[in-house]
Amino acid sequence: MRVCYVVAMVAEAKPFIERYGIKEVEGFFAPLPCRLYEGEVKGMTLNVVLNGQQNGSDLVGCEAATVATLSAIQRLKPDLIINSGTCGAFRANGAGIADVFIGNGVMFHDRRVPGDDAWGTQSLGNYAVWEGSQALAEALGLKMGKVTTGSSLDMQPCDLDMIQRHGGELKDMEGAAVGFVCSLLHTPILYVKSVTDLCDGGAETFEEFSRNLGKACEALKVANEQVIDYLTGQIRVV
Amino acid sequence: MRVCYVVAMVAEAKPFIERYGIKEVEGFFAPLPCRLYEGEVKGMTLNVVLNGQQNGSDLVGCEAATVATLSAIQRLKPDLIINSGTCGAFRANGAGIADVFIGNGVMFHDRRVPGDDAWGTQSLGNYAVWEGSQALAEALGLKMGKVTTGSSLDMQPCDLDMIQRHGGELKDMEGAAVGFVCSLLHTPILYVKSVTDLCDGGAETFEEFSRNLGKACEALKVANEQVIDYLTGQIRVV
Repeated sequence: MRVCYVVAMVAEAKPFIERYGIKEVEGFFAPLPCRLYEGEVKGMTLNVVLNGQQNGSDLVGCEAATVATLSAIQRLKPDLIINSGTCGAFRANGAGIADVFIGNGVMFHDRRVPGDDAWGTQSLGNYAVWEGSQALAEALGLKMGKVTTGSSLDMQPCDLDMIQRHGGELKDMEGAAVGFVCSLLHTPILYVKSVTDLCDGGAETFEEFSRNLGKACEALKVANEQVIDYLTGQIRVV
Repeated sequence: MRVCYVVAMVAEAKPFIERYGIKEVEGFFAPLPCRLYEGEVKGMTLNVVLNGQQNGSDLVGCEAATVATLSAIQRLKPDLIINSGTCGAFRANGAGIADVFIGNGVMFHDRRVPGDDAWGTQSLGNYAVWEGSQALAEALGLKMGKVTTGSSLDMQPCDLDMIQRHGGELKDMEGAAVGFVCSLLHTPILYVKSVTDLCDGGAETFEEFSRNLGKACEALKVANEQVIDYLTGQIRVV
């Protein structure tokens, strides 16, 4: 079995990469900026693909995630893609800082095209998640929520309206782009998301995100160890 | 010389494909939905890559454009990418329906990340356009403008603010995503954009877009014939 993580930021992936001691395969995706880490963990091939950098900063957002996911699937042919990273969430849904959620759906909240027809549906996304996501969440005692993706760190009134109308809960900047590419290439996708900021908590988003990034990434590492244990049969559903 | 058009909608590409009688290379990008048309025109290899469809509608927006551009460059290795399509524009900038513009810059207007630091700069895009863009526009008597890209057909106050602060003029849904991939792979990009709707004209965008799509695509075809004539040396700078 080959499992491939797609992760935007070095900060999100580093604790996990260090935990398993997996090594970078230098230049694997060159000339693209994406970076590959690979190792064997409990009989499974574990890949971590980072978006990489441009002009000195980690590439975040949907276009970079599209490039990384497409390249990862085409070159590595994984059995499962895992999009792991940080997100905003809603206190009203019971979320707290550094809570880890498994995605039970995924949508875009900032691709506004009018109508309930084919274009409106397409713009919303609503791609399928891996069919084993719920059993995994139950086995590990993790909450579930719907990932909702946009290209901005802030949340404008039009974003909140879309999120509320379509049940979005975990606000990130890559998830639906990763899910879109997986939908094109029929590759299962699992979402593991850790909360850095509360969209309805009253704090300034960037300050709250920065303050909680380390804590959320540590929680993400712990959750991903459980995910790996589950996928390699170390944790069984009772 | 190989020139590759990247086009989102069949409606935008069809008049041009029919004009040159170029043929589809069936299944070239399979299992991706992108579609390739290829032919020889005046000693030049001419490719047109369409985003393709998902669930019955043309794939529009930045993620699909990223997939199409990355696939086109990796598989075809063109000397020049041309992103040709329709856009919204501003009456205040002197634009009218079915006017054709050449891009002199490109940015995103809906990737809001705070700060003027590396992340803020990255989110804005501002990728380089082909260095011959201005000479081409002058030779063909076409106006120039800065392409500004977002994932929505409408324009929210936050979009307009970003557009005005950074000089955006030609509002589309793919241009900067195409430019981003070209920047990663160091492939020159030329923008040819035809106006379907006026963002400051008072009309409802989708209705205006739909009403003018045919007229704008015809103008696009005529302009692209001139572009091909220029690139193959049929029109010389005097």
